[in-house]
Amino acid sequence: MKAVVYNGPRDVSVEEVPDPKIEKQADVIVKITSTNICGSDLHMYEGRTDFETGRVFGHENLGEVVEVGSAVDKVKVGDMVAIPFNVACGYCKNCERGFTNYCLTMQPKKEWAGAAYGFADMGPYQGGQAEFLRVPYGDFNCLRLGEDARDSKRQNDYVMLADIFPTGYHATEMAGVKPGDQTVIFGAGPVGLMAALSASIRGASRIWVVDRRPDRLGLAESIGAIPVDGSKVDPVEFIKDQTMGLGADNGCECVGYQAHEPDGTEDMNLTLNQLVQAVRFTGKIGVVGVFVPQDPGGKDEFAKNGKAVFDYGWFWFKGQTMGTGQCPVKKYNRLLRDLIVSGKATPSFIVSHELPLEQAPEAYQHFDARDEGWTKVVLKPGMK
Amino acid sequence: MKAVVYNGPRDVSVEEVPDPKIEKQADVIVKITSTNICGSDLHMYEGRTDFETGRVFGHENLGEVVEVGSAVDKVKVGDMVAIPFNVACGYCKNCERGFTNYCLTMQPKKEWAGAAYGFADMGPYQGGQAEFLRVPYGDFNCLRLGEDARDSKRQNDYVMLADIFPTGYHATEMAGVKPGDQTVIFGAGPVGLMAALSASIRGASRIWVVDRRPDRLGLAESIGAIPVDGSKVDPVEFIKDQTMGLGADNGCECVGYQAHEPDGTEDMNLTLNQLVQAVRFTGKIGVVGVFVPQDPGGKDEFAKNGKAVFDYGWFWFKGQTMGTGQCPVKKYNRLLRDLIVSGKATPSFIVSHELPLEQAPEAYQHFDARDEGWTKVVLKPGMK
Amino acid sequence: MKAVVYNGPRDVSVEEVPDPKIEKQADVIVKITSTNICGSDLHMYEGRTDFETGRVFGHENLGEVVEVGSAVDKVKVGDMVAIPFNVACGYCKNCERGFTNYCLTMQPKKEWAGAAYGFADMGPYQGGQAEFLRVPYGDFNCLRLGEDARDSKRQNDYVMLADIFPTGYHATEMAGVKPGDQTVIFGAGPVGLMAALSASIRGASRIWVVDRRPDRLGLAESIGAIPVDGSKVDPVEFIKDQTMGLGADNGCECVGYQAHEPDGTEDMNLTLNQLVQAVRFTGKIGVVGVFVPQDPGGKDEFAKNGKAVFDYGWFWFKGQTMGTGQCPVKKYNRLLRDLIVSGKATPSFIVSHELPLEQAPEAYQHFDARDEGWTKVVLKPGMK
Amino acid sequence: MKAVVYNGPRDVSVEEVPDPKIEKQADVIVKITSTNICGSDLHMYEGRTDFETGRVFGHENLGEVVEVGSAVDKVKVGDMVAIPFNVACGYCKNCERGFTNYCLTMQPKKEWAGAAYGFADMGPYQGGQAEFLRVPYGDFNCLRLGEDARDSKRQNDYVMLADIFPTGYHATEMAGVKPGDQTVIFGAGPVGLMAALSASIRGASRIWVVDRRPDRLGLAESIGAIPVDGSKVDPVEFIKDQTMGLGADNGCECVGYQAHEPDGTEDMNLTLNQLVQAVRFTGKIGVVGVFVPQDPGGKDEFAKNGKAVFDYGWFWFKGQTMGTGQCPVKKYNRLLRDLIVSGKATPSFIVSHELPLEQAPEAYQHFDARDEGWTKVVLKPGMK
Repeated sequence: MKAVVYNGPRDVSVEEVPDPKIEKQADVIVKITSTNICGSDLHMYEGRTDFETGRVFGHENLGEVVEVGSAVDKVKVGDMVAIPFNVACGYCKNCERGFTNYCLTMQPKKEWAGAAYGFADMGPYQGGQAEFLRVPYGDFNCLRLGEDARDSKRQNDYVMLADIFPTGYHATEMAGVKPGDQTVIFGAGPVGLMAALSASIRGASRIWVVDRRPDRLGLAESIGAIPVDGSKVDPVEFIKDQTMGLGADNGCECVGYQAHEPDGTEDMNLTLNQLVQAVRFTGKIGVVGVFVPQDPGGKDEFAKNGKAVFDYGWFWFKGQTMGTGQCPVKKYNRLLRDLIVSGKATPSFIVSHELPLEQAPEAYQHFDARDEGWTKVVLKPGMK
Repeated sequence: MKAVVYNGPRDVSVEEVPDPKIEKQADVIVKITSTNICGSDLHMYEGRTDFETGRVFGHENLGEVVEVGSAVDKVKVGDMVAIPFNVACGYCKNCERGFTNYCLTMQPKKEWAGAAYGFADMGPYQGGQAEFLRVPYGDFNCLRLGEDARDSKRQNDYVMLADIFPTGYHATEMAGVKPGDQTVIFGAGPVGLMAALSASIRGASRIWVVDRRPDRLGLAESIGAIPVDGSKVDPVEFIKDQTMGLGADNGCECVGYQAHEPDGTEDMNLTLNQLVQAVRFTGKIGVVGVFVPQDPGGKDEFAKNGKAVFDYGWFWFKGQTMGTGQCPVKKYNRLLRDLIVSGKATPSFIVSHELPLEQAPEAYQHFDARDEGWTKVVLKPGMK
Repeated sequence: MKAVVYNGPRDVSVEEVPDPKIEKQADVIVKITSTNICGSDLHMYEGRTDFETGRVFGHENLGEVVEVGSAVDKVKVGDMVAIPFNVACGYCKNCERGFTNYCLTMQPKKEWAGAAYGFADMGPYQGGQAEFLRVPYGDFNCLRLGEDARDSKRQNDYVMLADIFPTGYHATEMAGVKPGDQTVIFGAGPVGLMAALSASIRGASRIWVVDRRPDRLGLAESIGAIPVDGSKVDPVEFIKDQTMGLGADNGCECVGYQAHEPDGTEDMNLTLNQLVQAVRFTGKIGVVGVFVPQDPGGKDEFAKNGKAVFDYGWFWFKGQTMGTGQCPVKKYNRLLRDLIVSGKATPSFIVSHELPLEQAPEAYQHFDARDEGWTKVVLKPGMK
Repeated sequence: MKAVVYNGPRDVSVEEVPDPKIEKQADVIVKITSTNICGSDLHMYEGRTDFETGRVFGHENLGEVVEVGSAVDKVKVGDMVAIPFNVACGYCKNCERGFTNYCLTMQPKKEWAGAAYGFADMGPYQGGQAEFLRVPYGDFNCLRLGEDARDSKRQNDYVMLADIFPTGYHATEMAGVKPGDQTVIFGAGPVGLMAALSASIRGASRIWVVDRRPDRLGLAESIGAIPVDGSKVDPVEFIKDQTMGLGADNGCECVGYQAHEPDGTEDMNLTLNQLVQAVRFTGKIGVVGVFVPQDPGGKDEFAKNGKAVFDYGWFWFKGQTMGTGQCPVKKYNRLLRDLIVSGKATPSFIVSHELPLEQAPEAYQHFDARDEGWTKVVLKPGMK
């Protein structure tokens, strides 16, 4: 089959690779019809992780079940399914408590937790930017969709269930966003926009989204958020001015360790410290932007070793709470699916490009260059 | 009346000061019979805050009501009361939601929140290391006790309700300690010991307490915790060894910014980074040790400005959650009182010294020197 | 001043009564500008309670502060305020935990809890269907509004904060309505409509509202709910048909003990048992419709003594949870106010009549007769 | 193999039946070494359900894994395991949210939910009062134990993890028992005693247990609870007297529909209505005593149809909350196991009899007769 293969820093190509097979009786094979490029793919694409050359990218996957192992009971051949990016067993101590983001069984490294498709350090699982994908523990890991999911356009909504819609929602969950709240979101990339959409679904009364790219701020505004252009105003002062000096009720970090100054200098502390200032005493902060223990591309020794120079004194003095980490997709994908079905959420508004799988290399190039207008790419392996 | 007055770094004396008066109709005047010296008093005593000379220390107070303002309805003259260290109004947005630790009314500084008796930066309220104390909003801020609280020995239990018992409990609440959990506590000072007691009350199956002082580790062991001597073993490795490499379910920070290496070098990051390592993926951490935005006595520019060099990459990678800040005493003081009444909690086990108010200067000296055996001092203004 | 006085069953008149005065130093006097007639006023109006003749009705009140007691600190003369129907002290064990609906201080009857303005069995407090109202513990009990609240039309939104908007919201809180949920609401009266609005704010994906009156069902439909006409379909079967036989995720009871069959026969069990059937295994049910321990007007001995013939076997077998009781308004009125301010909630859509206070008798008559189109009456004491 | 077979009302015998086999690839076969007789077995034994003659009883099971299906990954032959009484799939909407008590997959009846071993209406699964048991979805449904569980005496603790320890704990969870609470438990049978133990683990300051049997009240007292003999005092008045008339903070129902008056007359409403009276305004009540939609043996039409004559008016007026239903064992069995391992819980204190499987008929007879001293029987299939 064809798949997007990583050849080294900033070099991917679409290659023929062996078809996935049922390896264990609970496996399912899915024919991928929509698969996104994610911001975290770029970390690997840029060579800032130990992702292996020759492996296949892709953890935001949707498609049709074409084969099921003999121990699969729920999922049937022909079902349309959205597949959480987390690979999870369903029966370890963490999965049992809903932490499928930190499955103990599927992560091969002792003392670590969590697994994903086509992801550095997250186990040996191939990615889904390909024609087919093997899904372990298929009954547990596949979310079934309705017949409308056979429509390629409609898939642009449902494919967001694999990662970024739940991930944005998870930021608002960790931030404790409740009806009436005033929420600030740093980052108007796909995840930040999903966090804004989620805050709106949860009944926030005001939502600020901070970024510097006009196209993305425009998307934030299109769903009712207040855009804050960080290249023109100090976002902390802006939020404080609008809240009698008290700050937002809560905040979401949707940028990660590649946060940078307007001049392009990376500063992994930037958004974290801005959030501490922009959020009120007692406020909660949810961090879904990716941070890493080791970053070979970091600008200094702190960054290389994942150390933040963090305004901890203020964080503590304000009595804030911070939740972090990857999203347990299964915790949210049913409820978000039901919101899409009922028409109360339309996450496809962020899709800027639908492209055949073959154009993945070009898409990676543009997305990595942060070219204007390249907000979210959905690859369509079946597209002619 | 007599009171413990701050004259400058490491200099307190017992002086005559004016008696407090009813200033507003909701005020209550309490004759103090038990008042503790707290570890956070030492930060001020050492001159590492902007605490004003001439002011009175003391925020852990218990005594008998001797006068009530004309708008006081619940509290009566003669009632024995334990007084939360937080001064709170009861009707602002924060108090309403239970955040009496971040009252917006009683903190005079605009954009800040929270007030306390005899505390730097927490409003103009005199401390209770004195014969009398004025308590604003007396009906809201006094916790009534039973007749047994007239006994001076029994007061050694109830006086812990003013601060450290609720504060230790708050650490376990923010850490989410539940029945069956394995919990690690950094610090076996009074607050750490109260956190260990609280973890036990909440049903933890194993509790480790990390410190280097044998007297304090012995107290931890006396209530069923496992003492871990950080001068003899690496606490992170010790915890991991006992948990199949996974780490504790959750952790409490009860040391604060004056954490230091075995050789005495301060390192405000020490316990924070150890906790990130010692607690499992998905774990929660509650931080009640004090951290400050500005520390004139900090060892370097980071410390002076309250900046931690924090292993954020690991914190995020492990999907941990961290809660911080001072304790909202009223959230817990009723329930902890009821546990003392029923005999299920006896927090006085930490009391090492009961002294007359006049011996406060000597007590400060010993406590500040971390002299062995000086775990917790209760001053008794009425003691002959 | 003028006030709506109860003279006996189905007999109210607007009479001159003494002006309220500051009785205690924490009191506030409010000049009422908008005050609603509530469905629970009808229980008293119909003589089915022991409400005293000569007393004044009215617990949904909004107005301008015209006098403050000497111990009032926050509220100022001239402030526009919405007043929770609960009268609460702010410092008893129940208020402290947020249960201002069950204040132990303001309810005079020993072993009971909870107080309200102009309400049977809820203390001696006069109602606000009058020109002025005395509000005890004014700082705690008044919710301040912005300048826009001086506008009489705008008051039609804010006055709902006194009772029914929080009450409807409380139903959804007790029912645990979360984003994506499918929720069924029994009753499309003002409270049921507020519950539907609240479920929508909380992100429900589908909301059914069951009633028999076309005007009310039309209002439900106007805010995006699915109207279910109980006179035309079996609501239980209807809900099951739309949910693969499983039932709604959760449900709200907004009718109360005067629920009746299509033929008018009262049956206090009707909606309770329908909810048990219409809600899925594991579902939660929030009951804000009023039920009473004694109902002199009950149709049989069970009803007279507040005994339901309840399908308990099914309730238990399905593992359902039920929350009940009056609403703690202060838990929600800030957040709902902020939603009104930001334009995300417009509860005034239910207002059918704005009338001068003098027309209260006529309004009671129509409302009690359940005349079509009389959904919600706002009395305007200042209206010419 | 040998198994306890139901022949009809009050008639069981130990018979040879076919050995269970691996039917599906995720199945596990367990050699049973400890299996309890449960109070709910008696409902079936007495013929008050539609339990089929010829079927095998037993849903509280522990033993050694002797065979695993080819899709089983975690559980190994030789593992000692405690088996939740709920049979659950792990991937349906209910299991996913932790409601393994209401699994949608394993219950064959459309529109119903929940399955169990050897239980009326809960699917076709054979019971474990036998030499061997087939456990579907073995990785999900088996809780692994340590080596100490090979000891038959020690099994008397661990076997309680299959049902009654989690069930008692679930009562306290639904009742919201927190540190410091005063909790009342109706019923001192095995489940009531486990609820009392659980309340103690959760930090309750006072625990009352109401029953009429001195042997059981003695067991309650042995773990620090206050015994209340309902044949000698009115339990409602007793609780109120000890709580200033306010009632307990929360309550647990551990009796069920066979509650009866001192004279033996059954009254399924008895404990429910007593709980409403004995628990304070705002209190929560957890009901794990079994209630059924249909009871052929009920004393009147209400009882036959599972209808309670419930003091709903009081329940609502007091603003109480009630949770109900069977326990989701997997939600609690790990944490309770860890408490047994660490020595903080010893649930075997209730075991009155350890008998070989062959003596099951005699044990049923005594247990059903409520003979004094027959608190809890553990059958030991391997015992000579």
